[in-house]
Amino acid sequence: MKESGFKVTPWEVSGNIDYNKLIKEFGVSRIDGNLLERIRKHTKELHPMLSRGLFFAHRDLDWILNEYEKGNKFFLYTGRAPSGPIHIGHIFVWIFTKWLQERFDVELWFQFPDEEKFLFKNLSYEEVQKYLGDNMLDVIALGFDPNKTHFIIDTRHASLMYPEAVKVAKKLTASSVKASFGLNDSSNVGQYFYTCMQAVPAFLPSVIKKKNIPCLIPHAIDQDPHFRLTRDILPKLGHYKPASIQCSFIPPLTGISGKMDSSKENAIFLTDSPSEVKNKINKYAFSGGQSTIEEHRKKGGNPDIDVSYQYLRMFFEPDDKKLQKIYDDYKSGKMLTSELKNILIEKINAFLKEHQKKREKAAKAIDKFIFKYKA
Amino acid sequence: MKESGFKVTPWEVSGNIDYNKLIKEFGVSRIDGNLLERIRKHTKELHPMLSRGLFFAHRDLDWILNEYEKGNKFFLYTGRAPSGPIHIGHIFVWIFTKWLQERFDVELWFQFPDEEKFLFKNLSYEEVQKYLGDNMLDVIALGFDPNKTHFIIDTRHASLMYPEAVKVAKKLTASSVKASFGLNDSSNVGQYFYTCMQAVPAFLPSVIKKKNIPCLIPHAIDQDPHFRLTRDILPKLGHYKPASIQCSFIPPLTGISGKMDSSKENAIFLTDSPSEVKNKINKYAFSGGQSTIEEHRKKGGNPDIDVSYQYLRMFFEPDDKKLQKIYDDYKSGKMLTSELKNILIEKINAFLKEHQKKREKAAKAIDKFIFKYKA
Repeated sequence: MKESGFKVTPWEVSGNIDYNKLIKEFGVSRIDGNLLERIRKHTKELHPMLSRGLFFAHRDLDWILNEYEKGNKFFLYTGRAPSGPIHIGHIFVWIFTKWLQERFDVELWFQFPDEEKFLFKNLSYEEVQKYLGDNMLDVIALGFDPNKTHFIIDTRHASLMYPEAVKVAKKLTASSVKASFGLNDSSNVGQYFYTCMQAVPAFLPSVIKKKNIPCLIPHAIDQDPHFRLTRDILPKLGHYKPASIQCSFIPPLTGISGKMDSSKENAIFLTDSPSEVKNKINKYAFSGGQSTIEEHRKKGGNPDIDVSYQYLRMFFEPDDKKLQKIYDDYKSGKMLTSELKNILIEKINAFLKEHQKKREKAAKAIDKFIFKYKA
Repeated sequence: MKESGFKVTPWEVSGNIDYNKLIKEFGVSRIDGNLLERIRKHTKELHPMLSRGLFFAHRDLDWILNEYEKGNKFFLYTGRAPSGPIHIGHIFVWIFTKWLQERFDVELWFQFPDEEKFLFKNLSYEEVQKYLGDNMLDVIALGFDPNKTHFIIDTRHASLMYPEAVKVAKKLTASSVKASFGLNDSSNVGQYFYTCMQAVPAFLPSVIKKKNIPCLIPHAIDQDPHFRLTRDILPKLGHYKPASIQCSFIPPLTGISGKMDSSKENAIFLTDSPSEVKNKINKYAFSGGQSTIEEHRKKGGNPDIDVSYQYLRMFFEPDDKKLQKIYDDYKSGKMLTSELKNILIEKINAFLKEHQKKREKAAKAIDKFIFKYKA
């Protein structure tokens, strides 16, 4: 969609996103106070990403809770299309997914569609395979429970997935795919078929366990077009429509609009060193502060457009009181931009230190995560 | 293509086919006397399907022989898209393929694209799977060497095939597929992708063995559009263009034009009983005879349009002298249509008796034929 200067598709997010308009346009529902309270009943407390509105929209989340309350547990489905190193913009959904998995005690199916970026970008098959191995390490290092987490890799699990994908494909015309994803006659035929593979994990556990299991997909809202098609088709194949819980975008370092991408100045990668993090944030993180210290002390900063503050709000400062104090101090001018940045640098580096330690041990665990089946 | 009242596409063959025009239009080469002599050098004798011109066209067969003579053996690739029971129209290519395999001592990769007819026809996934099991029995019963014959089944071998198919897909635009196969925007996206899966066996052995191996595809000429695309793309992926040896169509029982299809009155199925064969041929086989015995004795019959004679020529009477005598006797009026039909009935029933005996034991052998690989 392109409207009022912003654009949200599975392949492009740009401009200053009006989330109210996006909710209307996409036809999703806002997560309201009632729904938050229903979630809290099961999770005891709310994850900050929920209470602070980073996860703000959904499809059929109320139905997921109805079924859960009847004893019909859902499974979670999320994924990662390997195309480069993982940055902190990628992991917000996964961290939240992990929290859902733990609080609801459910299985997670984690898809690595290792053909997607090969088909859609100027990346070789080998490059994508390299990133696949690399990306799996980061996902494992986040601490998912290997007993309840199953990695499925499109090319390696194709014997399981392709037979289901063709069932989706038979229900999906070229014109639907063109309309949903902006493909045209010059697009390659793998791009036409790809969304069928992305649909499969939403019902694969039901196929494997031979019973209908509700599926909840946590994802950034730009992926909604994929799952809209999936939701149209799955009931025709006798499966439930997958539900979703959708988050807004993690802004790039350089500004509050769009979403974090993998360009060097816009992203903090999970393998960045403490000094790289420090330099990037000091150099690039868009600031809501004033141009001189004197002016800042007098007029105060604007945390609402300050990327460092937003990262703290979105994930790195889970304590609401501390966050509020940072907000107030920055807004009043008591806290300088350099001080705000230092708080974030410290938080990110503490997180990355722990992550990188776990990442080093992750290679040994890969085999436990990859879903096993008989060919 | 549609011209002069005939039509040849991978999904439709109809009308009175002008093979000279087809050769020109498709851009294939006729198998001439020189090429036949080169083949004979290796095979000692020529299979009647070659000497009698049933296999009449090719692409790069001379190159295949060049490579073979240099010690670079080719492999054979043929297949069957399960969609119903096997009839005698299907097996001509396979019988010839078996002869090539034996005479050249080469491997055969036999593809069962069990998604094709599901995607292109009004057949359920389960129906196709039933026919898959059924069709494999007939292929095995033809007597292929299990040590040199590998069955690959698209859905079951997808972990091996899909990663290669996406490499083909990236080189193939929707508009190419539309032009080659007459797809449009209402076609399902599985149909767009399918030809990529059909391309894979033409280079899969090269991928598995990590060296380029020439591929020869025996097939009926209507499948040429699939392999034309394959030939365009494979060199871009570093593989040889597959060569082909192409046959004309086995006419339906009811007339000399078009090709045998699976309608009851047009086909002799491999599971038909002797009395079914007798009844079908007596009732439906299009005759070149005259309307009364008297007239036939006087004017003689026309073997060139007589389906029974054509089946004898194409396969069931391998002895050239005997065939010539039948031709002469029928043409002169010495042989009646009923006598000609009786010869064919006896030949087919002898063939089917043997086939059905082998077919009963085939189920035990399936496992030996299915290609094994590590998932």
